[in-house]
Amino acid sequence: MRILLTGSAGFVGSHLGERLLEDGHEVVGADNYISGQRRNTAFLEDYPAFEALEADVSHAIAYQGPALDWVMHFASPASPPHYQKHPIETLMVGAQGTQNALVLAREHRAKFMLASTSEVYGDPLEHPQVETYWGNVNPIGIRGCYDEAKRYAEAITMAYHRTHGLDTRIIRIFNTYGPRMRADDGRVVTNFINQALAGEPLTVYGDGSQTRSFQYVSDLVEGIVRLMGVVHHEPVNLGNPDEYTIQAFAEIIRNRIAPAAEIRHLPMPQDDPKQRRPDITKARALLGWEPVTPLEQGLEATIAYFSKLLETAL
Amino acid sequence: MRILLTGSAGFVGSHLGERLLEDGHEVVGADNYISGQRRNTAFLEDYPAFEALEADVSHAIAYQGPALDWVMHFASPASPPHYQKHPIETLMVGAQGTQNALVLAREHRAKFMLASTSEVYGDPLEHPQVETYWGNVNPIGIRGCYDEAKRYAEAITMAYHRTHGLDTRIIRIFNTYGPRMRADDGRVVTNFINQALAGEPLTVYGDGSQTRSFQYVSDLVEGIVRLMGVVHHEPVNLGNPDEYTIQAFAEIIRNRIAPAAEIRHLPMPQDDPKQRRPDITKARALLGWEPVTPLEQGLEATIAYFSKLLETAL
Repeated sequence: MRILLTGSAGFVGSHLGERLLEDGHEVVGADNYISGQRRNTAFLEDYPAFEALEADVSHAIAYQGPALDWVMHFASPASPPHYQKHPIETLMVGAQGTQNALVLAREHRAKFMLASTSEVYGDPLEHPQVETYWGNVNPIGIRGCYDEAKRYAEAITMAYHRTHGLDTRIIRIFNTYGPRMRADDGRVVTNFINQALAGEPLTVYGDGSQTRSFQYVSDLVEGIVRLMGVVHHEPVNLGNPDEYTIQAFAEIIRNRIAPAAEIRHLPMPQDDPKQRRPDITKARALLGWEPVTPLEQGLEATIAYFSKLLETAL
Repeated sequence: MRILLTGSAGFVGSHLGERLLEDGHEVVGADNYISGQRRNTAFLEDYPAFEALEADVSHAIAYQGPALDWVMHFASPASPPHYQKHPIETLMVGAQGTQNALVLAREHRAKFMLASTSEVYGDPLEHPQVETYWGNVNPIGIRGCYDEAKRYAEAITMAYHRTHGLDTRIIRIFNTYGPRMRADDGRVVTNFINQALAGEPLTVYGDGSQTRSFQYVSDLVEGIVRLMGVVHHEPVNLGNPDEYTIQAFAEIIRNRIAPAAEIRHLPMPQDDPKQRRPDITKARALLGWEPVTPLEQGLEATIAYFSKLLETAL
């Protein structure tokens, strides 16, 4: 199949692109590098069936090649420091970017997949979050630029499905970690690893009792590939339901890298969700999927990646 | 002042435009007439200080005239039958339309007002709705095209305010009625009035125990004009807190027009909110405003308008 993937230089995009190439597909990878990394594109350029298309998909996707079978829209800043630095671009890639990708899919009679997020659930009032939960999002808060962009992206994806019969998929990605994340991603996994590697204190916001679930990136990619093989237009949660408190997670990473490091507590930022955990009943039933990578194994690969990155930089 | 008003041929837009012209301002009215009505523009064309600009503001606002003091973004289909007929256009006028209006305001160093809606509260879990309530909206439901478009519009308005220091206002308009609504608006006021005038049964969805509050349009316009005179960037509810059950409201209208008419019950449509009522504490304190038009008086003017429209059509 021939697949256009936006956000191919992003963390998830580059792993997905590589898997699709490994599976024998042709991949056109579009990125504008505002949060994607050129070193991630380099991984994909090892494959002859990869083609890079430098493009700001919020403005246009100037693709003129052979017919596409899939358009997969994975472009967006995804970590709070990045989307808060680029709120307007984040809103645009959710609206204009998604629409440009939908229009391209329609022109090619291609299938379409939207990478949405557990952030559409906001600071959830129901636990765990099932796909039918409508969420609890502050539209005017400082996280609103990302959360509302993704909610809008889901709404317009459903509108193209309902209006034009486009064959669409929507995934809601929960916290995912692994190699190729940005070192300055700003979320707990990279924060803790890089702080520990640098011999600095690990910073926990609030008292650390808020929980997160962490999915290793290869598990996510497996779920995505399986969803490409079934017809289901409503959102599907992809995440790991194993829940850790941020405090426990800080301790696990600290103990692996720098057992003597301090864990320091800072005030909780505005609208930070207190708890989030996927209900993956639907993905289990629909895709026969569930996360299989143990946390220890995923962390080992991730720590190895950042250690190497740090050595290269020194 | 010189004011560019999008959606000037809409129900609210035309009343607001007329008030601004009466107050001595110059008004440039932009509309593409997908839900606006040419007969509403005709009201504004009586004023020499009015200038019509036929434009789809989701694509571009090709305004080349003198410096603007305000850009007021009131364009959008607003009734369920219209936005469900035009879901993609509705999403676009919330995203690209709002952004085009924000960019124009920024170019002119003008102030900006967004007409948002009580629909951002969705099917609310808190009553009455205060501006700090985050809402309960289904992003992928059939109403999502409107609700999410407006939530996105609020988010991008705040992003322009925070990023570029734009002097913005956001109003959340609750159910409003009056002359110049579309006869096929599809919401209860016009439905009941036109059914009663036609001697048909009045149709109530569900058992009629769901409540609505109804604001007469001149009260809304007064609130908008007052908000132009204060600096407040967060959303302000503008609505009438007097609550009626749909059943009671059907009876009031039936009894005024056609006391013998039947009231017929039909199944409730998907995601229809069961209750919605504004908390107007903020508008009272900030603007010294509250609705003053009694329901009887507002209905009389509205019924007179639709009676005349019906006579003209015959």
